[in-house]
Amino acid sequence: MPDLTLTTFDWVPEMPRGFVRDLRVRWALEEATLPYRVASVPFGDRSAAHFAHQPFGQVPWLTEGDISIFESGAILLHLGERSAALMPADPSGRSEAIKWVFAALNSVEMASLPWSMFKFIGDAGGTPGAKFLDEFLQIRLKYLEPVLAGREWLVGSFSVADILMSDVLRPVDRFDGLAAHPACRDYVARATARPAFVKAHADQMVHFAAADAARAGA
Amino acid sequence: MPDLTLTTFDWVPEMPRGFVRDLRVRWALEEATLPYRVASVPFGDRSAAHFAHQPFGQVPWLTEGDISIFESGAILLHLGERSAALMPADPSGRSEAIKWVFAALNSVEMASLPWSMFKFIGDAGGTPGAKFLDEFLQIRLKYLEPVLAGREWLVGSFSVADILMSDVLRPVDRFDGLAAHPACRDYVARATARPAFVKAHADQMVHFAAADAARAGA
Repeated sequence: MPDLTLTTFDWVPEMPRGFVRDLRVRWALEEATLPYRVASVPFGDRSAAHFAHQPFGQVPWLTEGDISIFESGAILLHLGERSAALMPADPSGRSEAIKWVFAALNSVEMASLPWSMFKFIGDAGGTPGAKFLDEFLQIRLKYLEPVLAGREWLVGSFSVADILMSDVLRPVDRFDGLAAHPACRDYVARATARPAFVKAHADQMVHFAAADAARAGA
Repeated sequence: MPDLTLTTFDWVPEMPRGFVRDLRVRWALEEATLPYRVASVPFGDRSAAHFAHQPFGQVPWLTEGDISIFESGAILLHLGERSAALMPADPSGRSEAIKWVFAALNSVEMASLPWSMFKFIGDAGGTPGAKFLDEFLQIRLKYLEPVLAGREWLVGSFSVADILMSDVLRPVDRFDGLAAHPACRDYVARATARPAFVKAHADQMVHFAAADAARAGA
Protein backbone atom coordinates (compact mmCIF):
# COMPACT_ATOMS: atom_id res chain seq x y z
CA MET A 1 0.00 0.00 0.00
CA PRO A 2 1.38 3.45 -0.84
CA ASP A 3 2.03 5.73 2.11
CA LEU A 4 0.15 8.85 1.04
CA THR A 5 -0.15 12.14 2.90
CA LEU A 6 -2.07 15.09 1.48
CA THR A 7 -1.16 18.49 2.94
CA THR A 8 -3.57 21.42 2.92
CA PHE A 9 -4.07 24.61 4.93
CA ASP A 10 -5.17 24.40 8.57
CA TRP A 11 -7.85 27.01 7.90
CA VAL A 12 -9.11 29.24 5.08
CA PRO A 13 -11.73 32.01 5.00
CA GLU A 14 -15.35 31.11 4.30
CA MET A 15 -15.34 31.93 0.57
CA PRO A 16 -12.86 29.42 -0.88
CA ARG A 17 -14.17 26.54 1.24
CA GLY A 18 -15.29 23.76 -1.06
CA PHE A 19 -12.95 25.13 -3.75
CA VAL A 20 -9.47 24.71 -2.22
CA ARG A 21 -7.49 22.50 -4.54
CA ASP A 22 -6.85 19.76 -2.03
CA LEU A 23 -10.39 18.79 -3.11
CA ARG A 24 -9.07 17.52 -6.44
CA VAL A 25 -6.61 15.26 -4.66
CA ARG A 26 -9.11 14.05 -2.05
CA TRP A 27 -11.54 13.29 -4.88
CA ALA A 28 -8.98 11.26 -6.84
CA LEU A 29 -7.92 9.34 -3.72
CA GLU A 30 -11.56 8.53 -2.93
CA GLU A 31 -12.24 7.39 -6.51
CA ALA A 32 -9.21 5.10 -6.32
CA THR A 33 -10.06 4.02 -2.73
CA LEU A 34 -6.42 4.64 -1.80
CA PRO A 35 -5.83 5.14 1.94
CA TYR A 36 -4.33 8.53 2.86
CA ARG A 37 -3.74 10.92 5.72
CA VAL A 38 -4.44 14.65 5.72
CA ALA A 39 -1.88 17.02 7.23
CA SER A 40 -2.17 20.78 7.75
CA VAL A 41 0.09 23.81 7.45
CA PRO A 42 -0.74 27.30 8.72
CA PHE A 43 -2.70 29.48 6.30
CA GLY A 44 -1.31 32.54 8.04
CA ASP A 45 2.38 32.06 8.66
CA ARG A 46 3.95 30.03 5.85
CA SER A 47 7.26 28.45 6.79
CA ALA A 48 10.40 27.68 4.79
CA ALA A 49 9.42 23.99 5.12
CA HIS A 50 6.12 24.83 3.41
CA PHE A 51 7.93 26.56 0.52
CA ALA A 52 10.29 23.59 0.23
CA HIS A 53 7.28 21.46 -0.70
CA GLN A 54 5.28 24.11 -2.58
CA PRO A 55 7.46 26.92 -3.98
CA PHE A 56 4.50 29.32 -4.40
CA GLY A 57 3.36 28.89 -0.79
CA GLN A 58 0.11 27.30 -1.93
CA VAL A 59 -1.56 23.96 -1.25
CA PRO A 60 -1.96 21.08 -1.82
CA TRP A 61 1.02 18.83 -1.99
CA LEU A 62 1.17 15.06 -1.74
CA THR A 63 3.94 12.97 -0.28
CA GLU A 64 4.48 9.29 -0.91
CA GLY A 65 7.48 8.14 1.09
CA ASP A 66 10.38 10.34 -0.05
CA ILE A 67 8.50 11.76 -3.03
CA SER A 68 6.80 15.15 -2.63
CA ILE A 69 4.61 16.48 -5.44
CA PHE A 70 2.98 19.90 -5.81
CA GLU A 71 0.54 21.12 -8.51
CA SER A 72 -2.83 19.40 -8.59
CA GLY A 73 -2.24 18.36 -12.22
CA ALA A 74 1.07 16.66 -11.41
CA ILE A 75 -0.42 14.98 -8.34
CA LEU A 76 -3.35 13.62 -10.33
CA LEU A 77 -1.09 12.27 -13.09
CA HIS A 78 0.99 10.58 -10.38
CA LEU A 79 -2.11 9.01 -8.81
CA GLY A 80 -3.34 8.08 -12.28
CA GLU A 81 -0.36 5.73 -12.55
CA ARG A 82 -1.53 4.02 -9.34
CA SER A 83 -5.12 3.18 -10.30
CA ALA A 84 -7.13 2.28 -13.40
CA ALA A 85 -10.05 4.04 -11.69
CA LEU A 86 -8.18 7.28 -12.43
CA MET A 87 -6.52 6.75 -15.81
CA PRO A 88 -6.81 4.17 -18.59
CA ALA A 89 -3.91 1.71 -18.40
CA ASP A 90 -3.44 1.37 -22.19
CA PRO A 91 -1.03 3.86 -23.83
CA SER A 92 -3.64 5.34 -26.16
CA GLY A 93 -6.20 5.94 -23.40
CA ARG A 94 -3.47 7.30 -21.16
CA SER A 95 -2.38 9.73 -23.88
CA GLU A 96 -6.00 10.89 -24.32
CA ALA A 97 -6.35 11.49 -20.58
CA ILE A 98 -3.13 13.52 -20.43
CA LYS A 99 -4.28 15.80 -23.27
CA TRP A 100 -7.51 16.55 -21.45
CA VAL A 101 -5.73 17.11 -18.14
CA PHE A 102 -3.76 19.90 -19.83
CA ALA A 103 -6.84 21.15 -21.67
CA ALA A 104 -8.64 21.53 -18.34
CA LEU A 105 -5.79 23.37 -16.66
CA ASN A 106 -4.22 25.37 -19.50
CA SER A 107 -7.07 25.99 -21.96
CA VAL A 108 -10.15 26.15 -19.72
CA GLU A 109 -8.96 27.15 -16.23
CA MET A 110 -6.74 29.90 -17.65
CA ALA A 111 -10.03 31.48 -18.77
CA SER A 112 -12.38 30.28 -16.02
CA LEU A 113 -10.32 31.23 -12.96
CA PRO A 114 -9.71 34.91 -13.83
CA TRP A 115 -13.35 35.21 -15.01
CA SER A 116 -14.62 33.76 -11.72
CA MET A 117 -12.32 35.98 -9.67
CA PHE A 118 -13.69 39.06 -11.45
CA LYS A 119 -17.21 37.92 -10.50
CA PHE A 120 -16.16 37.16 -6.95
CA ILE A 121 -14.52 40.51 -6.30
CA GLY A 122 -17.45 42.26 -7.95
CA ASP A 123 -15.59 43.88 -10.84
CA ALA A 124 -18.16 46.00 -12.63
CA GLY A 125 -17.07 44.77 -16.05
CA GLY A 126 -17.35 46.85 -19.19
CA THR A 127 -13.62 47.58 -19.45
CA PRO A 128 -11.65 46.21 -22.43
CA GLY A 129 -9.93 43.77 -20.09
CA ALA A 130 -13.11 42.42 -18.56
CA LYS A 131 -14.59 42.13 -22.03
CA PHE A 132 -11.57 40.12 -23.15
CA LEU A 133 -11.98 37.72 -20.21
CA ASP A 134 -15.67 37.22 -21.00
CA GLU A 135 -14.91 36.42 -24.62
CA PHE A 136 -11.96 34.21 -23.64
CA LEU A 137 -14.22 32.08 -21.45
CA GLN A 138 -17.11 32.09 -23.95
CA ILE A 139 -14.98 30.73 -26.78
CA ARG A 140 -13.67 27.91 -24.60
CA LEU A 141 -17.20 26.97 -23.46
CA LYS A 142 -18.51 27.22 -27.02
CA TYR A 143 -16.11 24.51 -28.17
CA LEU A 144 -16.27 22.42 -25.00
CA GLU A 145 -20.08 22.24 -25.24
CA PRO A 146 -20.31 19.85 -28.25
CA VAL A 147 -17.51 17.70 -26.80
CA LEU A 148 -19.43 17.22 -23.55
CA ALA A 149 -22.79 16.87 -25.32
CA GLY A 150 -21.42 13.84 -27.14
CA ARG A 151 -19.98 11.84 -24.27
CA GLU A 152 -20.46 11.02 -20.60
CA TRP A 153 -16.79 11.47 -19.69
CA LEU A 154 -13.87 12.98 -21.60
CA VAL A 155 -11.92 9.77 -22.19
CA GLY A 156 -14.13 6.67 -22.37
CA SER A 157 -14.55 6.01 -18.66
CA PHE A 158 -14.24 8.50 -15.79
CA SER A 159 -10.64 9.71 -15.27
CA VAL A 160 -8.50 12.39 -13.64
CA ALA A 161 -9.27 14.55 -16.67
CA ASP A 162 -12.91 14.67 -15.52
CA ILE A 163 -11.92 15.56 -11.97
CA LEU A 164 -9.95 18.52 -13.28
CA MET A 165 -12.32 19.64 -16.05
CA SER A 166 -15.40 19.55 -13.83
CA ASP A 167 -13.55 21.26 -11.00
CA VAL A 168 -12.34 24.12 -13.22
CA LEU A 169 -15.94 24.60 -14.41
CA ARG A 170 -17.42 24.63 -10.88
CA PRO A 171 -16.54 28.28 -10.10
CA VAL A 172 -18.09 29.32 -13.44
CA ASP A 173 -21.25 27.42 -12.56
CA ARG A 174 -21.26 29.06 -9.13
CA PHE A 175 -21.59 32.46 -10.82
CA ASP A 176 -24.19 31.09 -13.26
CA GLY A 177 -21.79 31.20 -16.20
CA LEU A 178 -22.86 27.85 -17.64
CA ALA A 179 -26.54 28.75 -18.23
CA ALA A 180 -26.06 28.96 -22.01
CA HIS A 181 -24.02 25.73 -22.05
CA PRO A 182 -26.28 22.95 -20.76
CA ALA A 183 -23.93 20.10 -21.64
CA CYS A 184 -21.16 21.76 -19.59
CA ARG A 185 -23.61 22.35 -16.72
CA ASP A 186 -24.93 18.78 -16.83
CA TYR A 187 -21.37 17.44 -16.91
CA VAL A 188 -20.52 19.34 -13.72
CA ALA A 189 -23.71 18.04 -12.09
CA ARG A 190 -22.89 14.47 -13.21
CA ALA A 191 -19.32 14.65 -11.92
CA THR A 192 -20.17 16.24 -8.59
CA ALA A 193 -22.93 13.66 -7.95
CA ARG A 194 -20.29 10.93 -7.72
CA PRO A 195 -19.95 9.57 -4.17
CA ALA A 196 -16.18 10.22 -4.23
CA PHE A 197 -16.75 13.94 -4.92
CA VAL A 198 -19.48 14.17 -2.28
CA LYS A 199 -17.21 12.61 0.34
CA ALA A 200 -14.16 14.69 -0.68
CA HIS A 201 -16.19 17.90 -0.56
CA ALA A 202 -17.76 17.06 2.81
CA ASP A 203 -14.35 16.14 4.21
CA GLN A 204 -12.87 19.48 3.13
CA MET A 205 -15.78 21.39 4.68
CA VAL A 206 -15.41 19.44 7.94
CA HIS A 207 -11.64 20.03 7.94
CA PHE A 208 -12.05 23.82 7.82
CA ALA A 209 -15.05 23.86 10.16
CA ALA A 210 -12.97 21.95 12.72
CA ALA A 211 -10.37 24.72 12.45
CA ASP A 212 -13.06 27.31 13.27
CA ALA A 213 -14.09 25.29 16.31
CA ALA A 214 -10.47 25.00 17.46
CA ARG A 215 -10.01 28.77 17.04
CA ALA A 216 -13.20 29.52 18.93
CA GLY A 217 -12.05 27.25 21.76
CA ALA A 218 -8.52 28.67 21.83
CA MET B 1 13.04 7.48 -36.20
CA PRO B 2 9.68 8.84 -35.08
CA ASP B 3 7.49 10.25 -37.84
CA LEU B 4 6.63 13.65 -36.39
CA THR B 5 4.42 16.34 -37.93
CA LEU B 6 3.74 19.61 -36.16
CA THR B 7 0.62 21.48 -37.33
CA THR B 8 0.23 25.23 -36.93
CA PHE B 9 -1.77 28.00 -38.62
CA ASP B 10 -0.99 28.97 -42.21
CA TRP B 11 -0.94 32.63 -41.19
CA VAL B 12 -1.52 34.80 -38.11
CA PRO B 13 -1.66 38.60 -37.67
CA GLU B 14 1.56 40.49 -36.91
CA MET B 15 1.13 40.70 -33.11
CA PRO B 16 1.22 37.04 -32.03
CA ARG B 17 4.11 36.17 -34.35
CA GLY B 18 6.95 34.81 -32.29
CA PHE B 19 4.44 33.86 -29.57
CA VAL B 20 2.25 31.23 -31.28
CA ARG B 21 2.51 28.06 -29.23
CA ASP B 22 3.90 25.93 -32.02
CA LEU B 23 7.13 27.67 -30.91
CA ARG B 24 7.23 25.53 -27.76
CA VAL B 25 7.04 22.37 -29.84
CA ARG B 26 9.55 23.55 -32.45
CA TRP B 27 11.91 24.48 -29.62
CA ALA B 28 11.63 21.05 -27.97
CA LEU B 29 12.13 19.27 -31.30
CA GLU B 30 15.23 21.37 -32.00
CA GLU B 31 16.66 20.71 -28.53
CA ALA B 32 16.16 16.98 -29.06
CA THR B 33 17.36 17.17 -32.68
CA LEU B 34 14.35 15.12 -33.72
CA PRO B 35 13.42 15.41 -37.41
CA TYR B 36 9.92 16.80 -38.07
CA ARG B 37 7.71 18.30 -40.72
CA VAL B 38 5.55 21.41 -40.32
CA ALA B 39 1.99 21.37 -41.70
CA SER B 40 -0.49 24.26 -41.85
CA VAL B 41 -4.23 24.71 -41.37
CA PRO B 42 -6.16 27.87 -42.27
CA PHE B 43 -6.24 30.55 -39.58
CA GLY B 44 -9.45 31.86 -41.06
CA ASP B 45 -11.71 28.96 -41.88
CA ARG B 46 -11.29 26.17 -39.33
CA SER B 47 -12.52 22.80 -40.54
CA ALA B 48 -14.10 19.84 -38.77
CA ALA B 49 -10.82 18.01 -39.40
CA HIS B 50 -9.02 20.77 -37.48
CA PHE B 51 -11.40 20.42 -34.51
CA ALA B 52 -10.96 16.65 -34.60
CA HIS B 53 -7.28 17.22 -33.76
CA GLN B 54 -7.69 20.28 -31.56
CA PRO B 55 -11.18 20.57 -29.98
CA PHE B 56 -10.77 24.30 -29.23
CA GLY B 57 -9.81 25.17 -32.81
CA GLN B 58 -6.35 26.26 -31.69
CA VAL B 59 -2.82 25.18 -32.61
CA PRO B 60 -0.47 23.39 -32.31
CA TRP B 61 -0.97 19.70 -32.47
CA LEU B 62 1.61 16.99 -33.08
CA THR B 63 1.09 13.70 -34.86
CA GLU B 64 3.34 10.68 -34.60
CA GLY B 65 1.98 7.93 -36.82
CA ASP B 66 -1.57 7.30 -35.59
CA ILE B 67 -1.16 9.35 -32.41
CA SER B 68 -2.38 12.96 -32.42
CA ILE B 69 -1.68 15.19 -29.41
CA PHE B 70 -2.94 18.69 -28.65
CA GLU B 71 -2.00 21.01 -25.76
CA SER B 72 1.59 22.20 -25.69
CA GLY B 73 2.05 20.71 -22.21
CA ALA B 74 0.90 17.26 -23.31
CA ILE B 75 3.03 17.43 -26.47
CA LEU B 76 6.14 18.38 -24.49
CA LEU B 77 5.62 15.58 -21.97
CA HIS B 78 5.25 13.18 -24.91
CA LEU B 79 8.48 14.43 -26.48
CA GLY B 80 10.14 14.33 -23.08
CA GLU B 81 9.73 10.54 -23.16
CA ARG B 82 11.65 10.50 -26.45
CA SER B 83 14.80 12.37 -25.43
CA ALA B 84 16.96 12.86 -22.36
CA ALA B 85 17.70 16.33 -23.78
CA LEU B 86 14.12 17.20 -22.81
CA MET B 87 13.48 15.32 -19.58
CA PRO B 88 15.61 13.47 -17.04
CA ALA B 89 15.32 9.70 -17.58
CA ASP B 90 15.38 8.78 -13.86
CA PRO B 91 11.97 8.65 -12.08
CA SER B 92 12.85 11.31 -9.53
CA GLY B 93 14.11 13.82 -12.11
CA ARG B 94 11.14 13.04 -14.33
CA SER B 95 8.77 13.70 -11.44
CA GLU B 96 10.49 17.05 -10.74
CA ALA B 97 10.16 18.06 -14.40
CA ILE B 98 6.45 17.19 -14.48
CA LYS B 99 5.75 19.32 -11.39
CA TRP B 100 7.43 22.33 -13.00
CA VAL B 101 5.64 21.77 -16.31
CA PHE B 102 2.34 22.15 -14.45
CA ALA B 103 3.69 25.03 -12.37
CA ALA B 104 4.56 26.89 -15.58
CA LEU B 105 1.17 26.31 -17.19
CA ASN B 106 -1.24 26.32 -14.24
CA SER B 107 0.43 28.54 -11.62
CA VAL B 108 2.38 31.06 -13.71
CA GLU B 109 0.70 31.24 -17.13
CA MET B 110 -2.76 31.45 -15.55
CA ALA B 111 -1.53 34.77 -14.16
CA SER B 112 0.86 35.87 -16.92
CA LEU B 113 -1.38 35.37 -19.94
CA PRO B 114 -4.39 37.42 -18.74
CA TRP B 115 -2.00 40.09 -17.41
CA SER B 116 -0.21 40.29 -20.78
CA MET B 117 -3.49 40.41 -22.69
CA PHE B 118 -4.63 43.36 -20.58
CA LYS B 119 -1.40 45.15 -21.49
CA PHE B 120 -1.74 44.21 -25.14
CA ILE B 121 -5.31 45.44 -25.53
CA GLY B 122 -4.43 48.60 -23.62
CA ASP B 123 -6.76 48.11 -20.65
CA ALA B 124 -6.38 51.27 -18.57
CA GLY B 125 -6.15 49.29 -15.32
CA GLY B 126 -7.27 50.64 -11.97
CA THR B 127 -10.41 48.50 -11.80
CA PRO B 128 -10.72 45.86 -9.05
CA GLY B 129 -10.29 43.13 -11.69
CA ALA B 130 -7.15 44.63 -13.21
CA LYS B 131 -5.77 45.14 -9.71
CA PHE B 132 -6.42 41.48 -8.90
CA LEU B 133 -4.55 40.38 -12.05
CA ASP B 134 -1.57 42.59 -11.16
CA GLU B 135 -1.38 41.13 -7.67
CA PHE B 136 -1.92 37.58 -8.96
CA LEU B 137 1.10 37.92 -11.26
CA GLN B 138 3.22 39.74 -8.66
CA ILE B 139 2.80 37.01 -6.06
CA ARG B 140 3.79 34.33 -8.55
CA LEU B 141 6.90 36.28 -9.63
CA LYS B 142 7.79 37.05 -6.01
CA TYR B 143 8.07 33.34 -5.22
CA LEU B 144 9.54 32.31 -8.56
CA GLU B 145 12.34 34.86 -8.19
CA PRO B 146 14.31 33.07 -5.40
CA VAL B 147 13.83 29.72 -7.17
CA LEU B 148 15.40 31.06 -10.37
CA ALA B 149 18.06 33.04 -8.50
CA GLY B 150 19.33 29.78 -7.04
CA ARG B 151 19.65 27.63 -10.14
CA GLU B 152 20.42 27.75 -13.84
CA TRP B 153 17.47 25.54 -14.86
CA LEU B 154 14.43 24.34 -12.94
CA VAL B 155 15.37 20.66 -12.72
CA GLY B 156 19.11 20.08 -12.77
CA SER B 157 19.74 20.26 -16.49
CA PHE B 158 17.64 22.03 -19.12
CA SER B 159 14.24 20.36 -19.67
CA VAL B 160 10.76 20.87 -21.13
CA ALA B 161 9.90 22.63 -17.87
CA ASP B 162 12.32 25.41 -18.86
CA ILE B 163 10.84 25.68 -22.35
CA LEU B 164 7.40 26.20 -20.84
CA MET B 165 8.39 28.40 -17.89
CA SER B 166 10.52 30.75 -19.98
CA ASP B 167 7.91 30.91 -22.71
CA VAL B 168 5.10 31.82 -20.28
CA LEU B 169 7.34 34.60 -18.90
CA ARG B 170 8.21 36.01 -22.35
CA PRO B 171 4.97 37.99 -22.81
CA VAL B 172 5.45 39.51 -19.34
CA ASP B 173 8.99 40.52 -20.28
CA ARG B 174 7.68 41.99 -23.54
CA PHE B 175 5.57 44.44 -21.51
CA ASP B 176 8.46 45.08 -19.12
CA GLY B 177 6.81 43.17 -16.27
CA LEU B 178 10.03 41.48 -15.11
CA ALA B 179 11.98 44.65 -14.29
CA ALA B 180 11.64 44.10 -10.53
CA HIS B 181 12.51 40.39 -10.86
CA PRO B 182 16.01 40.20 -12.33
CA ALA B 183 16.42 36.44 -11.81
CA CYS B 184 13.24 35.83 -13.82
CA ARG B 185 14.41 38.25 -16.51
CA ASP B 186 17.89 36.70 -16.68
CA TYR B 187 16.34 33.23 -16.88
CA VAL B 188 14.26 34.25 -19.90
CA ALA B 189 17.37 35.75 -21.52
CA ARG B 190 19.37 32.58 -20.78
CA ALA B 191 16.68 30.28 -22.18
CA THR B 192 16.02 32.32 -25.31
CA ALA B 193 19.75 32.55 -26.08
CA ARG B 194 19.84 28.80 -26.67
CA PRO B 195 20.43 27.94 -30.34
CA ALA B 196 17.33 25.71 -30.37
CA PHE B 197 15.12 28.64 -29.31
CA VAL B 198 16.77 30.99 -31.80
CA LYS B 199 16.17 28.53 -34.66
CA ALA B 200 12.60 27.72 -33.57
CA HIS B 201 11.73 31.42 -33.30
CA ALA B 202 13.30 32.26 -36.66
CA ASP B 203 11.50 29.32 -38.29
CA GLN B 204 8.13 30.51 -36.95
CA MET B 205 8.75 34.05 -38.20
CA VAL B 206 9.75 32.74 -41.65
CA HIS B 207 6.68 30.47 -41.74
CA PHE B 208 4.28 33.39 -41.25
CA ALA B 209 6.26 35.77 -43.45
CA ALA B 210 6.06 33.20 -46.26
CA ALA B 211 2.27 33.24 -45.83
CA ASP B 212 2.28 37.04 -46.29
CA ALA B 213 4.32 36.65 -49.47
CA ALA B 214 1.94 33.98 -50.79
CA ARG B 215 -1.06 36.25 -50.03
CA ALA B 216 0.57 39.21 -51.72
CA GLY B 217 1.26 37.10 -54.80
CA ALA B 218 -2.23 35.59 -54.88
